Amino acid sequence: MELLKNYIDGSWTSSIEENTKEVINPANQQILARVPFGKGTSKDLEKAVLAAQVAFHDWKNVPVMQRVQPLYKLKTLLEENTDQIARIITMECGKTFAESKGELQRAIENIETACSTPTLIQSEFSENVARGVDEFMIRQPLGVCCCISPFNFPGMIPFWFLPYAIACGNTFILKPSEKVPLTMMKCFELLDQIGLPKGVVNLVHGGKETVDAMLEHPLVKAISFVGSTEVARYIYQKGSAYGKRVQAQGGAKNPILILPDADLDLSSKIIADSVFGCAGQRCLAASNIITVGDENGLVKDSIYHASLTKKTGYGLDEGIEMGPVISKESKSRIEQLIQIGERDGAKVILDGRNHKVPGFENGNFLAPTILEDLPIKSELMKTEIFGPVLTLLTLKSLDDAIEFINSNHYGNMACIFTSSGASARKFRNEVNSGNVGINIGVAAPMAQFPFSGWNNSFFGDLHAQGRHGIEFYTQTKVVIERWPKEWSRKF
Amino acid sequence: MELLKNYIDGSWTSSIEENTKEVINPANQQILARVPFGKGTSKDLEKAVLAAQVAFHDWKNVPVMQRVQPLYKLKTLLEENTDQIARIITMECGKTFAESKGELQRAIENIETACSTPTLIQSEFSENVARGVDEFMIRQPLGVCCCISPFNFPGMIPFWFLPYAIACGNTFILKPSEKVPLTMMKCFELLDQIGLPKGVVNLVHGGKETVDAMLEHPLVKAISFVGSTEVARYIYQKGSAYGKRVQAQGGAKNPILILPDADLDLSSKIIADSVFGCAGQRCLAASNIITVGDENGLVKDSIYHASLTKKTGYGLDEGIEMGPVISKESKSRIEQLIQIGERDGAKVILDGRNHKVPGFENGNFLAPTILEDLPIKSELMKTEIFGPVLTLLTLKSLDDAIEFINSNHYGNMACIFTSSGASARKFRNEVNSGNVGINIGVAAPMAQFPFSGWNNSFFGDLHAQGRHGIEFYTQTKVVIERWPKEWSRKF
Amino acid sequence: MELLKNYIDGSWTSSIEENTKEVINPANQQILARVPFGKGTSKDLEKAVLAAQVAFHDWKNVPVMQRVQPLYKLKTLLEENTDQIARIITMECGKTFAESKGELQRAIENIETACSTPTLIQSEFSENVARGVDEFMIRQPLGVCCCISPFNFPGMIPFWFLPYAIACGNTFILKPSEKVPLTMMKCFELLDQIGLPKGVVNLVHGGKETVDAMLEHPLVKAISFVGSTEVARYIYQKGSAYGKRVQAQGGAKNPILILPDADLDLSSKIIADSVFGCAGQRCLAASNIITVGDENGLVKDSIYHASLTKKTGYGLDEGIEMGPVISKESKSRIEQLIQIGERDGAKVILDGRNHKVPGFENGNFLAPTILEDLPIKSELMKTEIFGPVLTLLTLKSLDDAIEFINSNHYGNMACIFTSSGASARKFRNEVNSGNVGINIGVAAPMAQFPFSGWNNSFFGDLHAQGRHGIEFYTQTKVVIERWPKEWSRKF
Amino acid sequence: MELLKNYIDGSWTSSIEENTKEVINPANQQILARVPFGKGTSKDLEKAVLAAQVAFHDWKNVPVMQRVQPLYKLKTLLEENTDQIARIITMECGKTFAESKGELQRAIENIETACSTPTLIQSEFSENVARGVDEFMIRQPLGVCCCISPFNFPGMIPFWFLPYAIACGNTFILKPSEKVPLTMMKCFELLDQIGLPKGVVNLVHGGKETVDAMLEHPLVKAISFVGSTEVARYIYQKGSAYGKRVQAQGGAKNPILILPDADLDLSSKIIADSVFGCAGQRCLAASNIITVGDENGLVKDSIYHASLTKKTGYGLDEGIEMGPVISKESKSRIEQLIQIGERDGAKVILDGRNHKVPGFENGNFLAPTILEDLPIKSELMKTEIFGPVLTLLTLKSLDDAIEFINSNHYGNMACIFTSSGASARKFRNEVNSGNVGINIGVAAPMAQFPFSGWNNSFFGDLHAQGRHGIEFYTQTKVVIERWPKEWSRKF
Repeated sequence: MELLKNYIDGSWTSSIEENTKEVINPANQQILARVPFGKGTSKDLEKAVLAAQVAFHDWKNVPVMQRVQPLYKLKTLLEENTDQIARIITMECGKTFAESKGELQRAIENIETACSTPTLIQSEFSENVARGVDEFMIRQPLGVCCCISPFNFPGMIPFWFLPYAIACGNTFILKPSEKVPLTMMKCFELLDQIGLPKGVVNLVHGGKETVDAMLEHPLVKAISFVGSTEVARYIYQKGSAYGKRVQAQGGAKNPILILPDADLDLSSKIIADSVFGCAGQRCLAASNIITVGDENGLVKDSIYHASLTKKTGYGLDEGIEMGPVISKESKSRIEQLIQIGERDGAKVILDGRNHKVPGFENGNFLAPTILEDLPIKSELMKTEIFGPVLTLLTLKSLDDAIEFINSNHYGNMACIFTSSGASARKFRNEVNSGNVGINIGVAAPMAQFPFSGWNNSFFGDLHAQGRHGIEFYTQTKVVIERWPKEWSRKF
Repeated sequence: MELLKNYIDGSWTSSIEENTKEVINPANQQILARVPFGKGTSKDLEKAVLAAQVAFHDWKNVPVMQRVQPLYKLKTLLEENTDQIARIITMECGKTFAESKGELQRAIENIETACSTPTLIQSEFSENVARGVDEFMIRQPLGVCCCISPFNFPGMIPFWFLPYAIACGNTFILKPSEKVPLTMMKCFELLDQIGLPKGVVNLVHGGKETVDAMLEHPLVKAISFVGSTEVARYIYQKGSAYGKRVQAQGGAKNPILILPDADLDLSSKIIADSVFGCAGQRCLAASNIITVGDENGLVKDSIYHASLTKKTGYGLDEGIEMGPVISKESKSRIEQLIQIGERDGAKVILDGRNHKVPGFENGNFLAPTILEDLPIKSELMKTEIFGPVLTLLTLKSLDDAIEFINSNHYGNMACIFTSSGASARKFRNEVNSGNVGINIGVAAPMAQFPFSGWNNSFFGDLHAQGRHGIEFYTQTKVVIERWPKEWSRKF
Repeated sequence: MELLKNYIDGSWTSSIEENTKEVINPANQQILARVPFGKGTSKDLEKAVLAAQVAFHDWKNVPVMQRVQPLYKLKTLLEENTDQIARIITMECGKTFAESKGELQRAIENIETACSTPTLIQSEFSENVARGVDEFMIRQPLGVCCCISPFNFPGMIPFWFLPYAIACGNTFILKPSEKVPLTMMKCFELLDQIGLPKGVVNLVHGGKETVDAMLEHPLVKAISFVGSTEVARYIYQKGSAYGKRVQAQGGAKNPILILPDADLDLSSKIIADSVFGCAGQRCLAASNIITVGDENGLVKDSIYHASLTKKTGYGLDEGIEMGPVISKESKSRIEQLIQIGERDGAKVILDGRNHKVPGFENGNFLAPTILEDLPIKSELMKTEIFGPVLTLLTLKSLDDAIEFINSNHYGNMACIFTSSGASARKFRNEVNSGNVGINIGVAAPMAQFPFSGWNNSFFGDLHAQGRHGIEFYTQTKVVIERWPKEWSRKF
Repeated sequence: MELLKNYIDGSWTSSIEENTKEVINPANQQILARVPFGKGTSKDLEKAVLAAQVAFHDWKNVPVMQRVQPLYKLKTLLEENTDQIARIITMECGKTFAESKGELQRAIENIETACSTPTLIQSEFSENVARGVDEFMIRQPLGVCCCISPFNFPGMIPFWFLPYAIACGNTFILKPSEKVPLTMMKCFELLDQIGLPKGVVNLVHGGKETVDAMLEHPLVKAISFVGSTEVARYIYQKGSAYGKRVQAQGGAKNPILILPDADLDLSSKIIADSVFGCAGQRCLAASNIITVGDENGLVKDSIYHASLTKKTGYGLDEGIEMGPVISKESKSRIEQLIQIGERDGAKVILDGRNHKVPGFENGNFLAPTILEDLPIKSELMKTEIFGPVLTLLTLKSLDDAIEFINSNHYGNMACIFTSSGASARKFRNEVNSGNVGINIGVAAPMAQFPFSGWNNSFFGDLHAQGRHGIEFYTQTKVVIERWPKEWSRKF
């Protein structure tokens, strides 16, 4: 059983910590590896910070057009190794092979966008703000930047941050989720080959101890986090308390509104993909499906059938459309939430509990589940389930739907399916959500746009990706230069 | 004696709090007014928040080109009332009449830049991110935004924030410093005349209770602060703990490096203006003057003479170049710091203590003071004095000077005087400071640029002014629209 | 009878040319003034160029934040004088008083946007493109810039150019249309009061001789033109032949497509306003109204009734919705074109010829006219009429409509009325036109956006308004600075 | 002897034209290939235009993130084939192997910058310009775009245009110089492998007939040219006459000013590289070297020695620093210009005429040549020599130097060598040149910046490279959408 090493200062080194945690395949409980876990990982982190700080002194002065050259290589290597990495993702994280490849594509797009840093990092020059005085701005890197990434996108989320951070001249430390560390182990093998100086990128395993060490270390200048709202708030508060800049992305409870003037077949399929893709374990998974004016139940039927036919199983097997959830604890938590729904009055019109996949009897499988008639006041209506559970809700009007959506304390995504330009515009204008889809099931912004959670789905102001990434990973330096003509010497 | 009212929801209303604090002219201890001060002000704040929240619902939907129209009027009114407002600033804050007019000019420039919001608030549109799919971003306002402004620029600092906040569609609450509330009383008389709907801008007096109420109120979405590092850190931590976005600008200890190849006469005059302007009470005041290679003491002599001739007195009197410091406590704190300098080994080669201004014997006056031979390790070398005290320091080389500057925990401003392009470039590239001056004594960014404190001079990531102001006062909403061609109906 | 003067070098001076042309009120043939017209005006132009060139030497060095101050004043003056100027527009140009005020509002919006020049003119700075090397760009003004403006928007079109040109540091010469010179006479009275140095803005009357002198003069660096395609092409060719940068906006034949899923009443009113507003004399007037699937003729009826009720008369009279066309020649040309339509097979279902307005029997009036059944191959289908004439065309599908629209050699505007998001998106994506309206009758871009004619509606690449204006009126200067550290002297 | 084929519609096809011209190695007169040349090439061009037009219909709809994928591959292929292509450049063009590799590096940087197109092509979105109305801009491609490239940078200049053009969705036709067509033959072999659809990029050989066919063809929408001012003006005039957008870069006569406060050794070496690099055949070659205050002739001596030691020979041989000029005609023209200099009074203090390279006696070699005492009024002072000839000029002051520089009718580059920040700033501010170097010998803008010729060095407004490239290769479409809330249907 492999005991995972850290990647610090350009070398693979063993952790100081001897305690470990098992990395488990959620489809069959196979133990894939063991990851350092415990108090000693904070010392690993300290080592990484010092290596990163040393590396920073040179890296920040490397011209930005040279700093992005390794990213071009990384793009090529990830493309060449997509299948292999995708297989690792599926093994440790559970999602289907196609989904794993999909998230790598998003990773690559972020690397491409970070390759635009020589242009994006430019800032403003004003000649002659007063006679003989010019003023301009420079974006300079911060220093050591850290990322704490979650279990659900082991191959994508680190690349929301790492490419921008290093392209801007920072050095970087990643702590992958202890549940899914293998994907980044493989990616760091590639990162090792692209010509980065030692210490520019580092990987340190661990759990809360590593995180706290990051948050407290005075040389760490910026923290990027993606995970639950509870932890995001903790990260934001503690990171801020230590004076750092922090971007912390939290949970969600995403609604999709479907109007009768939408194309039902097409919409239903997209919606079912949104709800059950990645077994519902994504921050842009739809969860509350709202219908308006669906008097004959056509929308409901259509979604029901699209859900019913989803094939659940091991993500590496052919034809599988949905994998297991990440852990036994997670499965049991989701089942309890369904039960709470029932207790609150919901009917389970499609019940994915006790779903057995032949050959994977120990897997953390749930099949697609649909709740109906859950009272609008039920706490579950606002609780993130993070599993393949859909709640069907019928409201009277577009206005009511928007009001319901805006009453939620999250604000990650809201989508509408309609053929009406007017309804779409009203929705996108009024809904309190940072990522909005019109006839889109998973409104994930392209890498040129910020991944814009609102409310409790995000703490901070600058988001991941694109220009926001550049702004987050640099500090502005304004220079005012006065060169009096009189000082031009005569000879 | 006037008891100051709050401006809430478009009306001047009395505070709930009966306790007050005196507003005092620092040049003669005249009591100018009384300002509500105490626990009840948190209730005033609550009223203002509710009014601002109600106003937000309409204001956010007013087209941005209309939202800036009142700002054009405000510019005109401030220009017409400059002398009157400047007189108020001088009376309550102490600085000279010319300095007061100068800060109003900076305020007006920020209003002008906020008039550019219709252009600056635009965001990105990408056609065809996939076939038939367009993606774009909208910048939408946050809601109720608050500003806590300090005593030293009563007429400027509120306008670093207010114009951008409301141009972006937010509503705004200002708590001016209780030491200098009269300037904004006058400005809000003007704000009352420019056609803003009720509740869009509000002014609430008070002290820490008002601040805490702002930080804790769930409807307040953003906090802008300028003041000491200690309080800035408090604001940042507490505001973040309540999940808000915060920009908190703190203190400084600003160095100016003067190389022998600078024009001595010109440089010395500018440097003395930087140190003693506003009686040293500005976050961009120079404080440590560093010379390199000044073997014959020419630089030192030149600065000494430029300092010696500064005329101290009442800011409204003709020919006065420096006014009093803000309070008796402040004066005594500065005198103690000078004493600490002496204790640590400094020579006071120009001693401004016990300075008496005829006719203003009760004023909080200090004359220009110069310390020499303060050991580099003295704590005072890194302590913000916020008074008219200059420390002369001699170092061996440009490298040593940059190292000294970068060892400081602040990073608000660093300046160099030189005729050498190479020295200037090295300095601007390497110095850890967000506002850099080359042959400039007070490197205050124009309104188009962010006011870029670094390190302990700033907590947050987005600064005041310009594009940063727009980014801080808006949240990004990314919309992904799929309009399948097939959905285009046939008729 | 007033003989109009030129405004050159800050003074009102008589033309060298003695020949004149009459300025005529198109509603009643009253002679309003006489304008210099003939060969001698080229000498006036020469004087203006020299004055503008002298003024350029200083003006280009005035800091941009100061250069826009006069524009703030101009905005205020135009607002205060709107009614008076609008009356002049109506008198010499014919449009209604409300239309005249409307175009002035657009003028003011361009002045506001030009006030953003301190931000818009900023350009890019890149630190460390190689070690020790910085690179940045400056936008510097061109020199003397000229504008030739048409008769149909005497108060707006000059301000598409003038504010940006001078804000960027250029000096400017305007030749207003000899048909409508009085509006700019009044505006230049205001321009005379805003504190511009002599020679920065100049007005020279005349016709083709003045234009040719502009095109040929080596000190004239840029030409902006709006008018017919024929003249626009001439200006573009000749200006380019003389090595200048040129933006030349030409004619149009604008289609509006109305689908049955649009709101008929609302749409029809907007469409009639688009066709008959300004008596059809605008480059964004709709002309070909295309229906698809209008089997019951509902759309046709609705438009017919909206057209029928338009009240034609003297623009200064109460309740008038449409004024006369500019000249007798123009009226007769339009009537001939209607006749050609009839000859080609069209039915005139609403005939505005021989329309008499009581009290204004000599006016150049035509009432709303609608042609039906004009064969799609008729030349008139692609001929700009520039009068209140609407052609109704029925096609089979959205695809056919787009194909028809894209077969036109113009490309100024294309609009669609629909409630379908998918139809709107397909239309905006595929239509070969630079200004596109969705449920908009006159798709005139706001001042922050370029007025984007395509094909024969525009020659050049940078359009009027916004960022394009800034780019057109400046030339880029890229500076690469190498400041070797070794050159930083030791002392 | 290879007869070169065209690359049209994804295939290598023989020209219709039977006449040819020889491609000659300028170092030894070896015939390398034969290129189609004559009237028939206009028919080849016609075929290419039609193929490109067909390809355009699909290519414009490919999402931009996919359109740049082939460019990533191209970057990799060019890197892998650098040595081979560089050898071809040296063989047909004459420059040294290191210079050939250098120009390919610049080509690659432009490809990288074009990979940023998904970000750069984004345009502006404004929500709520009026209530319920949104306005935004789209950048759409033009259609078929053509480039006519010169002999001196066969591997770089086509990539100033091609990558941006196709990334923006246009299709492209290149006509390489008939003197150096082999470099692009090799590059198009690579372009053939990167997955571009047929017809997106095309290569057509020929001379003036091909050019005229491009300029006249109605389907060609944009022309990019680099060459002599005479031809650039022709291209600009004729392209404009046919209504196209044109960017035409012409010749130069570039000055370098060296002040005595510069580091002489370093500066002189850089300056000699600037003058003699590529045998002086580049539009950024320095030509007039101006000294101020060089009383003891130190600058002159230093430049003399730096020039004297340049080793001339065959570019593929080891240690060679300067190759031959392009042709016998060119060599003889340069020698005549030197003679004219002598006739006008210049002393030839270093004479490179009659330079023989052993083993390459037939090569078009000239060694470094320095003229002194050429009268400032000599026509040669303003004549582009395009060969390894340096004119030394002494002036009295920085002001005089700037005046001299600004009297030139070109404006491609101007450089200064100085240690003075004030002199550098004055120079960069005042000099009438679009590319300015401070202590830089060849001020070639990085690919993120426009290559900014001024005056007769450029006709048009949008230059090559970076954002200007994107703007040139797209047309703006402004969309105004009104989606009335009322149109949102009730169900």
